[in-house]
Amino acid sequence: MDSLEISQDSVKLKLLKKLLISQEYISGETLANDLGISRTAIWKHIEQLRESGYKIEAQPRQGYRLLSRPQQDLSLEEIGLCLKTSWMGHRLIYLSETASTNDVAKQLARQEAAPGTVVLAGHQTHGKGRLGRRWISPPDVNLYFSIVLRPNVSPSKAAVATLVVAVAIVKAIREVAGIPATIKWPNDILCQGRKLVGILTEMSADMDRVHHIVVGIGINCNSDLTSLSNHLLAPATSITLETGTIVARDQLLCCCLEQLEKYYSIWIEQGFASIVDEWKRHSETLGKRIKVLVDDQIVEGTAVDLDQNGNLILNRENEIIRIIAGDVLV
Amino acid sequence: MDSLEISQDSVKLKLLKKLLISQEYISGETLANDLGISRTAIWKHIEQLRESGYKIEAQPRQGYRLLSRPQQDLSLEEIGLCLKTSWMGHRLIYLSETASTNDVAKQLARQEAAPGTVVLAGHQTHGKGRLGRRWISPPDVNLYFSIVLRPNVSPSKAAVATLVVAVAIVKAIREVAGIPATIKWPNDILCQGRKLVGILTEMSADMDRVHHIVVGIGINCNSDLTSLSNHLLAPATSITLETGTIVARDQLLCCCLEQLEKYYSIWIEQGFASIVDEWKRHSETLGKRIKVLVDDQIVEGTAVDLDQNGNLILNRENEIIRIIAGDVLV
Repeated sequence: MDSLEISQDSVKLKLLKKLLISQEYISGETLANDLGISRTAIWKHIEQLRESGYKIEAQPRQGYRLLSRPQQDLSLEEIGLCLKTSWMGHRLIYLSETASTNDVAKQLARQEAAPGTVVLAGHQTHGKGRLGRRWISPPDVNLYFSIVLRPNVSPSKAAVATLVVAVAIVKAIREVAGIPATIKWPNDILCQGRKLVGILTEMSADMDRVHHIVVGIGINCNSDLTSLSNHLLAPATSITLETGTIVARDQLLCCCLEQLEKYYSIWIEQGFASIVDEWKRHSETLGKRIKVLVDDQIVEGTAVDLDQNGNLILNRENEIIRIIAGDVLV
Repeated sequence: MDSLEISQDSVKLKLLKKLLISQEYISGETLANDLGISRTAIWKHIEQLRESGYKIEAQPRQGYRLLSRPQQDLSLEEIGLCLKTSWMGHRLIYLSETASTNDVAKQLARQEAAPGTVVLAGHQTHGKGRLGRRWISPPDVNLYFSIVLRPNVSPSKAAVATLVVAVAIVKAIREVAGIPATIKWPNDILCQGRKLVGILTEMSADMDRVHHIVVGIGINCNSDLTSLSNHLLAPATSITLETGTIVARDQLLCCCLEQLEKYYSIWIEQGFASIVDEWKRHSETLGKRIKVLVDDQIVEGTAVDLDQNGNLILNRENEIIRIIAGDVLV
């Protein structure tokens, strides 16, 4: 099992950025001086970048020049290069295979990992969904990633984190893939009524404060129908099934992390009230007659609104019910 | 660092119960047959019991006879013998020293430890209180223990676990020590206005369900004033300071576990509404004018009631406020 890690302050990434910006050859000596490492270390990083799919020319007495970037749809270095965030995803750990990215991220969180730390997997052997369900995680086609967050909120306010994340992800998918993704309360993202994204939020808390939240996000990117359909309760789809083209997973992940940083900051600084309109705009649930499973009871009614605390407001024969958490059945 | 473990189905405990019930000698052969182990194994357990402070006579051709029980105020075997619960404390792990019993219990909980598993320490090097505070934990005089619980509730209902535990502990202390202990909302137990017990409840949850709760309980039993007073924000006391006698910690722990099982079961089966009157009866807070720190804001008013969801109801100049979690300052 491979484990790779990239962070925004790594020398390799700084080297790559220098090569990318320059149109000319850069000498090993210049690179070594600029980055404060030896020329041997420069050469080792160049070799690693070549292994990651970067074509880099080396000319005696002239130096190094970048010829082309990787062709695969997921490159850690490309994520590192493209990511425009202040802190989200600045440390990114890639595991070719793991049981569950949430479990790895929770372990890192207990070891004081910084907020915004991301665990990304090529393949999950025990991908988890809500309510103990599985999340089907075929290898090397989709995105499975978990993020460590440390909001300074009480546990009762943590439930809206899932709604904040849903808004960020739906915006990212619409932007990158151009498909009409919608949010099914509380934490699914659908396309044309079929499941595209699952979000699983877990927390460690005492009664006063959240210690950390780990949000796991599974996006069906390039998987075909056969790898999805037979296992899920609800019909599923993927971006590639909707668009007919392969989505660059690294590009999508960058956009997700940027939107996550944006909406997370709005939530923390201004409260969920500043996000609720955006949530409603993309809601699949509002206006529909639904059944919700709440604490083993089925509540039926029309979903009329989402309040400023993230509660779903249900109209049941003119009785108004506020639901904090539940599972929409229909 | 010593680590000992006792469970209700251990052979050693069954052997001890047989010796305790019998007034006569019991032969090694009878014991071996009854317990389904060898006579050598019986002899080894007898040796261990002697090391734990039990005086056991051995007469050739007659067998074994219990002469006296341990004199120290905390004996794991005595806890095992005396505990009258169905599941609470049926597995008890004793650590002579650990950083924090909550941390050990949380780790066990993640490894699927059964509900009711108890971690007890002789000494905590990093005892934790609420809101990041320390819990002063001098060695071998007090009780520091944590319990793994697995209530099938949503995270928003988990906050009342602390109130349930407070009721159980206040009842146990009143019963064993005969002192007028009271509950300061949400999770302190006082005697004559001085702090006697701290409770720290931590949980692991997703947005739908609690995975596990770990409740840590620190009871100042036999510590003197010097080991308590200099470190705490609030004035502290101990049972021995209130009564002038040494409290048998094993007896107190048994009573705590019995009351915890009782009130936890009431909470799960009937809801907190069935416990709220008991809580109010021992409340230090109700009827008083208080300041509460809620999410970095100070709310001042008169504590008028506790509702059936465990919220404290504050009357602030005829405005009624419900508080889920907070820290009473005055």
